[in-house]
Amino acid sequence: MAQTPSIPKGTRDFLPAETARRNYIFDTIREVFHRYGFQQVETPAMENLSTLLGKYGDEGDKLLFRILNSGDFLAGVPGDQLATRDSAAVVRSVADKGLRYDLTVPFARFIVQHRNDLVFPFRRYQIQPVWRADRPQKGRYREFYQCDCDMIGSDSLLNEAELVGIIDEVFRRLGLRTVVKINNRKVLAGIAEVIGQPQRITDITVAIDKMEKIGLEKVREELAEKGIPVEALARLEPLLMLSGDTGSKLLQLREILADSPAGMKGIAELETLFGYLEGFGLQTATELDLTLARGLHYYTGAIFEVKSLDEQIGSICGGGRYDDLAGIFGMPGVSGVGVSFGAERIYDVLTRLDLFPPHTGETTQLFFVNFGPREEAYILPVLARARQSGLRAEIYPDHDKMKKQLNYAHRKGIPWVALAGESEMAEGKVTLKNMVTGDQTLVTPEELIKIVGGAGINSEL
Amino acid sequence: MAQTPSIPKGTRDFLPAETARRNYIFDTIREVFHRYGFQQVETPAMENLSTLLGKYGDEGDKLLFRILNSGDFLAGVPGDQLATRDSAAVVRSVADKGLRYDLTVPFARFIVQHRNDLVFPFRRYQIQPVWRADRPQKGRYREFYQCDCDMIGSDSLLNEAELVGIIDEVFRRLGLRTVVKINNRKVLAGIAEVIGQPQRITDITVAIDKMEKIGLEKVREELAEKGIPVEALARLEPLLMLSGDTGSKLLQLREILADSPAGMKGIAELETLFGYLEGFGLQTATELDLTLARGLHYYTGAIFEVKSLDEQIGSICGGGRYDDLAGIFGMPGVSGVGVSFGAERIYDVLTRLDLFPPHTGETTQLFFVNFGPREEAYILPVLARARQSGLRAEIYPDHDKMKKQLNYAHRKGIPWVALAGESEMAEGKVTLKNMVTGDQTLVTPEELIKIVGGAGINSEL
Repeated sequence: MAQTPSIPKGTRDFLPAETARRNYIFDTIREVFHRYGFQQVETPAMENLSTLLGKYGDEGDKLLFRILNSGDFLAGVPGDQLATRDSAAVVRSVADKGLRYDLTVPFARFIVQHRNDLVFPFRRYQIQPVWRADRPQKGRYREFYQCDCDMIGSDSLLNEAELVGIIDEVFRRLGLRTVVKINNRKVLAGIAEVIGQPQRITDITVAIDKMEKIGLEKVREELAEKGIPVEALARLEPLLMLSGDTGSKLLQLREILADSPAGMKGIAELETLFGYLEGFGLQTATELDLTLARGLHYYTGAIFEVKSLDEQIGSICGGGRYDDLAGIFGMPGVSGVGVSFGAERIYDVLTRLDLFPPHTGETTQLFFVNFGPREEAYILPVLARARQSGLRAEIYPDHDKMKKQLNYAHRKGIPWVALAGESEMAEGKVTLKNMVTGDQTLVTPEELIKIVGGAGINSEL
Repeated sequence: MAQTPSIPKGTRDFLPAETARRNYIFDTIREVFHRYGFQQVETPAMENLSTLLGKYGDEGDKLLFRILNSGDFLAGVPGDQLATRDSAAVVRSVADKGLRYDLTVPFARFIVQHRNDLVFPFRRYQIQPVWRADRPQKGRYREFYQCDCDMIGSDSLLNEAELVGIIDEVFRRLGLRTVVKINNRKVLAGIAEVIGQPQRITDITVAIDKMEKIGLEKVREELAEKGIPVEALARLEPLLMLSGDTGSKLLQLREILADSPAGMKGIAELETLFGYLEGFGLQTATELDLTLARGLHYYTGAIFEVKSLDEQIGSICGGGRYDDLAGIFGMPGVSGVGVSFGAERIYDVLTRLDLFPPHTGETTQLFFVNFGPREEAYILPVLARARQSGLRAEIYPDHDKMKKQLNYAHRKGIPWVALAGESEMAEGKVTLKNMVTGDQTLVTPEELIKIVGGAGINSEL
């Protein structure tokens, strides 16, 4: 078997350095979720296809990974189906289960199935991989993680505000400068209503989006080409010309949408939300963005999107309010609001901006060189004490050449190396070497532990 | 869709309390792995079937979950195969990928694929789910986690000793009293050699195992029934009669196995290992157990197994030394030693012995009652300060009745509740209620943070 083994296309192995960086992102997000009272749940990788099918559109159905039924899977296939080799028909008889496509549909199923065991309003988070049989390409994988947090069973806009607080805290901890763009589905509905084009929300938001780039004239032309009547265009113009900060935009909107109850409700929601946010003293910029139109087929209130200020990349976090999460599974009227952090993109941004800390909480802090049996016997109790005092420490297991051992420590990124030969042992000490500065000092085991422990894994470099 | 949705049999949803307890186990294991210098890697859920097939025996091949190829999966199936409805033949044409069955084979593949990017000796750990199409039964699932740590590329017995150190530390932190049983494959080979029955290792270990329960006479009878010659039985008798502590057993073994070079090498390895362990000052009991015969088809040196002392359950951790992990993937001679923690069984033992801490690092520490808009505005800055100072804190999002809000805090297991009405606001204070004792005190926001922060999440109850 001379051929090098490989993995399915679109999937990835994660080596130690990469895994540690991914964990740094996940742990940061997890810790903020905990800080805000969210509880983790997990669902199985496989769901019944009856749970998944029809929830992501025809295109989504095609992208589901299906699990072949075990055993004699052909036994249940009607003979004529097999004869016609109709894969689309046969697939229904040979696969009952599929891999999770996102975290939302399994969570909706979860809510319904466990409704009696959950404490509402329910603050849940979930960090698990999902699988899509998408065409693999740069930055798009067939297996990737989603990090979702949602508040279920409460209409309070304080929930929306807390989510923005979470976004602020996560990206502040990661050292990423971001802007949170906020919109409201009801406002979009109001706009469509007042210009008499309720079905054209998407075209209108695209037009608003293009205003800055191509100007009013061009936008008018494009909309006319798309068949928006001249009268509607005229009514739309004040919206295209909205200016000022969020507060003044909301004031202008109040006039424009005065005749739309839905629109006015959306404005009131935005005012409440921005009111909360003002009190929060966030470090992240927030702004009203009427062009934000993600998830229009399920969001019913707030819509969020987070962009990096320093790197051109799509949204790195997004979400919104939905009024009927679990309706498809027979439990209507469950309102919720949530956001999803795009861990893969956040990884890419942090890499490009060189924002990962040089060491994470997983890096070995202290490495002991192993000269031979006698030195090893001298070192092992020191190693044990270092570990007991909380240090991440290891000893080289073999008696290889010092150069090889130091190379090991260097490649593993270990910041401190300790060694003890004849003279150190005679004095009851060890030589401690700082791998970054190259400085060496002769210290007692107590001093060793104090120096390495006090250095802090991230601050000493 | 009135029917309650469900999940595939043998799979599980994890609700918050269960997830927090599982995380407590995983986090404890992870932290000890880090303390010993292990680095995490991850592999994809799906592997090419060419990687998985033939590695787990015929029975294992049948238990693999296979992923149906995307699109027109029947296109590649020869016509006569379809006509005969031969599932076993067709399966090879319709599924190229399967779900990970364990962590070992993907790790062997990983080592070969990334050999040039890894730092050897390589200390890796991996905590991921695996999938098996087993018949579901109590305590056996189709999706479950494995927690493996291995040291690759070093023959040093210090590695074996460090693994026992890890086992000791993990179970000490979990509060579980355990015994680590240790054997050596070479000793077993030596025994089979000196009694002239190299193929009968399993029968012999079973016999040794039964000695205490059924006595020498019965064991003799059973072995005779199994066709072990009288002469071999006589040679086996001193082994059945081994007594004393590990040191004296090893001395007796030295005599019995004097003529077997393999056996003597095994004894020397055990002596070295137990020598290391003596110096470690472990709290966990360790013992030589010649009946330990797990993984005989791949272990070549040390064999480990950990049992709970307080609960009748199978092994909760096990492992050993293997000399040719990656040979099947074209990279022979890579020696390694590792152990795998049985997280699912550890969960069961901790549950039965009631050893989970009442709160984990994920429990919300402080809950704020929400009386209405004015009180909310007063509370929000206090909440923000509590979170900034490191507390996990939340506010009820709606203005529901106090009873309902307290019930929420109670069901979520939150130990401290803070509330502020007219009188508290007038004084610039909050009332802090200890949910366990029921005690209430009027405190400033600073005092609140100090009390809740100082209580410690696990110690105050």
